[in-house]
Amino acid sequence: MQNIKEILSDEISLDPKDWEALRTLGHHMIDDMTDHLQNIQNEPSWRTIPQDTKEFLKGGIPQTPGNIAEVYEEFKKHILPYPSGNIHPRFWAWVQGTGTPFGVLAEMLAATMNPNTAIGEHSAMYVEEQVLDWCKEMLNYRPTSSGILVSGGSMANITALMVARNHQTGRNIRKEGVQAAKGRMTLYCSIETHSCIDKAAEVMGIGSDSVRKIGVDENYRIKLNELADAIESDIAAGNTPFCVVGNAGTVNTGAIDPLDDLLSISRKHNLWFHVDGAFGALAKMVPEYKQSLGAIEEADSVAFDLHKWMYMPYEVGCTLVRDSDAHRSAFATEANYLMIHERELAAGPDPTGNYGLELSRGFKALKVWMSLKEHGIQKYAAAIRQNIAQAFYLGELIAKERKLELLAPVSLNIVCFRYKRDGLSAGQLNKLNKEIVMTLQERGIASPSSTIHGGRYAIRVANTNHRSRKEDFETLVKETVGIGDELAR
Amino acid sequence: MQNIKEILSDEISLDPKDWEALRTLGHHMIDDMTDHLQNIQNEPSWRTIPQDTKEFLKGGIPQTPGNIAEVYEEFKKHILPYPSGNIHPRFWAWVQGTGTPFGVLAEMLAATMNPNTAIGEHSAMYVEEQVLDWCKEMLNYRPTSSGILVSGGSMANITALMVARNHQTGRNIRKEGVQAAKGRMTLYCSIETHSCIDKAAEVMGIGSDSVRKIGVDENYRIKLNELADAIESDIAAGNTPFCVVGNAGTVNTGAIDPLDDLLSISRKHNLWFHVDGAFGALAKMVPEYKQSLGAIEEADSVAFDLHKWMYMPYEVGCTLVRDSDAHRSAFATEANYLMIHERELAAGPDPTGNYGLELSRGFKALKVWMSLKEHGIQKYAAAIRQNIAQAFYLGELIAKERKLELLAPVSLNIVCFRYKRDGLSAGQLNKLNKEIVMTLQERGIASPSSTIHGGRYAIRVANTNHRSRKEDFETLVKETVGIGDELAR
Repeated sequence: MQNIKEILSDEISLDPKDWEALRTLGHHMIDDMTDHLQNIQNEPSWRTIPQDTKEFLKGGIPQTPGNIAEVYEEFKKHILPYPSGNIHPRFWAWVQGTGTPFGVLAEMLAATMNPNTAIGEHSAMYVEEQVLDWCKEMLNYRPTSSGILVSGGSMANITALMVARNHQTGRNIRKEGVQAAKGRMTLYCSIETHSCIDKAAEVMGIGSDSVRKIGVDENYRIKLNELADAIESDIAAGNTPFCVVGNAGTVNTGAIDPLDDLLSISRKHNLWFHVDGAFGALAKMVPEYKQSLGAIEEADSVAFDLHKWMYMPYEVGCTLVRDSDAHRSAFATEANYLMIHERELAAGPDPTGNYGLELSRGFKALKVWMSLKEHGIQKYAAAIRQNIAQAFYLGELIAKERKLELLAPVSLNIVCFRYKRDGLSAGQLNKLNKEIVMTLQERGIASPSSTIHGGRYAIRVANTNHRSRKEDFETLVKETVGIGDELAR
Repeated sequence: MQNIKEILSDEISLDPKDWEALRTLGHHMIDDMTDHLQNIQNEPSWRTIPQDTKEFLKGGIPQTPGNIAEVYEEFKKHILPYPSGNIHPRFWAWVQGTGTPFGVLAEMLAATMNPNTAIGEHSAMYVEEQVLDWCKEMLNYRPTSSGILVSGGSMANITALMVARNHQTGRNIRKEGVQAAKGRMTLYCSIETHSCIDKAAEVMGIGSDSVRKIGVDENYRIKLNELADAIESDIAAGNTPFCVVGNAGTVNTGAIDPLDDLLSISRKHNLWFHVDGAFGALAKMVPEYKQSLGAIEEADSVAFDLHKWMYMPYEVGCTLVRDSDAHRSAFATEANYLMIHERELAAGPDPTGNYGLELSRGFKALKVWMSLKEHGIQKYAAAIRQNIAQAFYLGELIAKERKLELLAPVSLNIVCFRYKRDGLSAGQLNKLNKEIVMTLQERGIASPSSTIHGGRYAIRVANTNHRSRKEDFETLVKETVGIGDELAR
């Protein structure tokens, strides 16, 4: 090991030898990326990835240095032209936000500073605290609550449910494990709930068997009597009910559970009331939804994404927890190498690892901070309201078009419909509509995704897209009918 | 809800009204950020945050739009000057990587494309697959293994241990919960193991009581006989031992557990063998460490960070799992709204949610892809080797300086030492050394962090910094002695 020190006579770094080449390339990128975003509506909504690109993306690890301008050319040739397309005005697949150009610049600044936003006395820690306060303001959630920025809805829900699991039993679950609870620890939500709640139960060790899936009414909202019965029968069976999860916008249809009632039931049985508001929670800022989402203010925790209906670049979600002590108690750790000092670098705000699963974390807060300064929250509320209005508009267009049918009522920003034609079996209709979706994508016209409603394949539009215009939805309807007619022939 | 549609007569977007202003600002940022990184060695290693900045970072949520150039000025005034400092050549606190300038540009490109790298047929999914293959190549891990990029070491370890928990008992733990196992599910690691392993046990529901902490020898390596005894006694007690965690670089001292022996013991008892190689795993690319880290190739899983010893911008870590079926079985989900189609957008590689906790995920792979193309893996190996050589060099400087003493043997890239002075009590020495660390930081000279070794406060240097030079360590030694003398007076 003595010889190793000889190499210090010729030290290297990973900084560029030629800073001007880096600077010049950076300027090229700014021009290219600005052009790209400014003209995105003229691009197809999606493109087939050519085989030579797939082959190119299979090569072994580079051994020796390359030229950065050439690396950028490879990016422009093989990566940039084949996006998923969620920045395109006619992308409405799954639930994916659109990002913004100023958000792109914020990400560059965050990567320049490159903080680990986990611990210490430095600006990123304070920016995150401020952004969390702003998140509370958005939802009118209580100022004394705690929160943490996470990668997205799944992590936001898992984080919140971890707090619930650790807080509710009166036992030290962190230390003893879930087997310390009486019987099973059971959690309640509707059958329309996102799969990440099952995953949370699996992660937390209570098992997906402990997730009691409650039926829904014709508007896809949880049935309260079934819920009450399920809780009662778990209590009778010697289990430990600990949490009710309400949906603020289900993934399939955008349905909002009766949150007020869920809150009452949770309070009655002393259960943690969590709201999965991955995209829907932020609709609370829209006057028409203020009431149906009002109970979020009293929820014990709420999970939502800023890269969905706040249109931030990926990734950033948020968990807020009403009882900050319960939150901290669920995660706080002490370690010698993470010691806090009275002042300087090792002082600073409470380390974020005390509020979640992660230790290392990037500077997600900066893009939120800069974007909110760019637009102001009122404009975000208006953009969300516009997306909802567009969904209702699309619903009307579909209702007017005899070759299409709605498969679920429009209640927020999600529209599920299909092309119909007399004389086709259920199976044939499903196959035809799937072919329509793939053809819309293949031709670069539009990117809806799909789901299944009562065995029926649904073309599914989830609108969290600030670039979409009325005309885009008109195009979707027209082309769906056109392709349906063409394929049915 | 009918009125809401009236707003569609005047649709808004979050794109800039003035694209040229955005473009101009982007060019300014490129110049500023290039200058900033090019001259970082002339900045202090850390700066006190002024009170007016702390006040500024407390304001309420912006209501109305602001000017983007002014937002950038606020960033330059209140955020950029007060970093944690891990991009500075004399930052060695905790274990934090340095980032690179080209990595900054890669993050800008990733944010422009803004994919959710979770599902679908688009380039980001293939770039991630390629990067995972490169990660396997780095460690000579088997090509048929599976992997996933995560936020960092904590998530990488949690992800791997979830697979172990779900795979090892012969029961369906995902469904039934951990209570389905016989007795307690127990996990084994040394007392020097990072706290994230305790957190993983808490998250997974087995409880931190199930983490059996085994003692270490004088080189901070796990004691094998104690380990064997602990496993035997858990078996005798009717528990279910399921996993051994070996350290490839402990956080306190950089110690490498005897991984070959841990592998043998794990195989003998049919336990999952996981390696926490948060920073140390990548030292396997350095010839001097090839042997001591060789058993990683046979480990059931390994967790490591790319933002630490690969100097990537935050955040990116990685989990690799030898048995890809076990990996997928631990996480795979089916949901109607995530249906895979035969072709187009909803086709593509296996969704990443089948290999981890997250669904929404950013495009972390691009910075790895572009950076490896920029430098080639051999240069990374050389930079890691250089960091180790620098740590040994620092160790020698300390050994030669009678006013300093090493508190642990240097074995990788971590150096723990303190200032000493006759006539001071143990408590006084601890207080003095803590004051030295804070003074080094306060004066902007250097940023080590600290830990405790056997009750003794240690100044701790963890070197994953490609900007550090020999002279920087000489400065640290000289200034530590100088400040120590000054404070002791």
